[in-house]
Amino acid sequence: MLRLDASASGFAERFSTLVEAGREADTDVSDAVRGILQRVRTDGDAALLSLTRKFDRIDVAADGLAITQAEMDAACAEVAPDLMAALELAAARIRIFHEAQRPAGHEQVDTDGNRTGWRYTAVDAAGVYIPGGRATYPSSVLMNAIPAKVAGVERLVMVTPTPDGRMNPLVLAAARLAGVDEIYRVGGAQAVAALAYGTETIAPVDVITGPGNAYVAEAKRQLYGRVGIDMVAGPSEILVVADKGADADILAADLLSQAEHDPVAQAILITDSAELADAVAAAVPRALAHISTKAVAAESWDAHGAIITVAALGDAVPLIDALAPEHLALAVADPETLFQRVRHAGSVFMGYMTPEAIGDYVAGPNHTLPTGRRARFSSGLGVADFMKRTTFLACSDAGFAAIGPAAATLAEAEGLPAHALSVTRRF
Amino acid sequence: MLRLDASASGFAERFSTLVEAGREADTDVSDAVRGILQRVRTDGDAALLSLTRKFDRIDVAADGLAITQAEMDAACAEVAPDLMAALELAAARIRIFHEAQRPAGHEQVDTDGNRTGWRYTAVDAAGVYIPGGRATYPSSVLMNAIPAKVAGVERLVMVTPTPDGRMNPLVLAAARLAGVDEIYRVGGAQAVAALAYGTETIAPVDVITGPGNAYVAEAKRQLYGRVGIDMVAGPSEILVVADKGADADILAADLLSQAEHDPVAQAILITDSAELADAVAAAVPRALAHISTKAVAAESWDAHGAIITVAALGDAVPLIDALAPEHLALAVADPETLFQRVRHAGSVFMGYMTPEAIGDYVAGPNHTLPTGRRARFSSGLGVADFMKRTTFLACSDAGFAAIGPAAATLAEAEGLPAHALSVTRRF
Repeated sequence: MLRLDASASGFAERFSTLVEAGREADTDVSDAVRGILQRVRTDGDAALLSLTRKFDRIDVAADGLAITQAEMDAACAEVAPDLMAALELAAARIRIFHEAQRPAGHEQVDTDGNRTGWRYTAVDAAGVYIPGGRATYPSSVLMNAIPAKVAGVERLVMVTPTPDGRMNPLVLAAARLAGVDEIYRVGGAQAVAALAYGTETIAPVDVITGPGNAYVAEAKRQLYGRVGIDMVAGPSEILVVADKGADADILAADLLSQAEHDPVAQAILITDSAELADAVAAAVPRALAHISTKAVAAESWDAHGAIITVAALGDAVPLIDALAPEHLALAVADPETLFQRVRHAGSVFMGYMTPEAIGDYVAGPNHTLPTGRRARFSSGLGVADFMKRTTFLACSDAGFAAIGPAAATLAEAEGLPAHALSVTRRF
Repeated sequence: MLRLDASASGFAERFSTLVEAGREADTDVSDAVRGILQRVRTDGDAALLSLTRKFDRIDVAADGLAITQAEMDAACAEVAPDLMAALELAAARIRIFHEAQRPAGHEQVDTDGNRTGWRYTAVDAAGVYIPGGRATYPSSVLMNAIPAKVAGVERLVMVTPTPDGRMNPLVLAAARLAGVDEIYRVGGAQAVAALAYGTETIAPVDVITGPGNAYVAEAKRQLYGRVGIDMVAGPSEILVVADKGADADILAADLLSQAEHDPVAQAILITDSAELADAVAAAVPRALAHISTKAVAAESWDAHGAIITVAALGDAVPLIDALAPEHLALAVADPETLFQRVRHAGSVFMGYMTPEAIGDYVAGPNHTLPTGRRARFSSGLGVADFMKRTTFLACSDAGFAAIGPAAATLAEAEGLPAHALSVTRRF
């Protein structure tokens, strides 16, 4: 863990090194993925079944790819009531939040009667990738599927691998709660390929979202443009800004809640209190003793964690914007004032009583957020990712007469005479 | 040019072939582009100057990369008054249209006092690529730069090659009108690399938009994720739906206004009038005689053009959605009814008096639109492309007590104990 003091000499350079430090894996899987995409594109189901046999060690027939209603029923019956209640609370709150995000159409008319505007419509079909195996996250199902359904997507497909035939009942229960229409037991780049190109069994979709390993991420990258995708996601990160009113043991848990995701996750604390900085540095090792994810969390904290002291909270603002963190927690007495000055962050958690984990699950805002400083230019997942805007124009006779000549003039100047002709022939 | 009759046997298959026909060049420039990006990333200005010498045949020093105010003044003085007036009209109308697109923030409070919402902020810096040489489009400057400035982008950079030292005064005049802050005389993949990585002279930007050749497009594709980009653009296309009230000679000009862009551009007419279909087929060759872009337009129309007759206008709707055209012109008596049924189109031009060319220049809506059936899932360029959404959450004490337990339950179920700890430590 790195300790930095913003008033020390050489800080700018050391902070800049921290900001620029790449944590994303540089393993190039692009050739392997290109091969898989090509295979599924050419051979459809046959490729899918063969790759599933190879990677997930299960033998499925084409008509066994879809997870059945009976399997869904069985899965839901298996979920403990308190877990089901928690999922239901989460689903309801995520739905309410995202319903407010549905973008509005617009229309305006100029003084000559020319009408312009736009309309939003949902994509026909969307696909959600949900990882299987070790880390299975029902919350990811809710966070990806609910915005799609709120957008009005009629056909929502989920793909998730079932390595060695293992399925997570919670993931299936979440899919049912979120209104997923079809689920297939396939994973990896081959599942993404099936969603994009379609196979005999799986009809193609228009947008693919959801988390995944390096192969899944690279498959989405290569298919970007043929389908819409959510984003290029990297390892998770949190930046906690705290003042002396914050509790060191609580902050330690907050920091580790990101660190436990991944050895290359990053947790950073910025504080104007030297005492708090020391207290948190001491509290983290104590907190590690309480968690079963200790090995991963400790590795992340040791290699990528940082505690930075600043003379005044306001001095944190340029540091926040430079880091453009995925998660920004403002554990300070007056979070609102600080928030107003921040420009770049994926999602902000305000005040002493707002741990980021609340937002991961039940608060409502989406937990799919831009990582690796991408909050400088991109947003978390939202309803608009499953919709598109169609602009329109309707000229009145008077309006055409008013603006047509300028269009013809510019078309001629650009060397596009047919453009000009299509205007002048209407005079 | 292909003639199809929707009521003929075998139509579905032939139409499907038309829809699936790839018109995008398959030349793989990815290795060449990768090399150029790496060179600029490593060597900065030196690489930029050397590549500019090679590709644009001009010798520029680093301090000569920026186009000066004096050059801007000279360019503007050179623009004829009627052209300047047309540019000004276009700029004003594009600005008004896009100002209505500025996305609103939102805030909602649940019954327990938990506050959630989002805020939009502009990216710090954006770069616009404008092609030089043969096809120089001042309208592209307006269409890319104005939405960025409306979004509130403080630093707007334009790059444009000046092959053999040639600059287009109209492009510079448009840049001044649009409020571009910096302009550099560089082009190609090297210019895109400079915008993304920065050099000694050109500071990096967060978002890169604008049209370009295969190298520029591939450079943007490879840099997607490091910066935001507008879209993967392919050859232009128009789908005109017309009824018997439309004029065949005018429609011919409308079709050719896309065909003249590119030999692989596509113009398609759908009509419920067999007479009109024949009349347009005869009118296109006549119209070709009037335009200096005849060679390109004829090649496009011959190879990719189509006229499709349908029994009733309503039958056009599924064909429109399948084609998901960049431009959809509804040259019919009642365009509104038809438009209400369409799901997938980049931009719609309604009625007999609304040629697509009006929208290319002066109407207001953006002319940067999704091509190659991407209107199924993506939108034209807009203000939101230069902004990002930061969501937020502020729990009240009562609100935390109400939803915290569910978050802890789900965190434990997902095997993330530090997440749970960050909640339970606050109880």
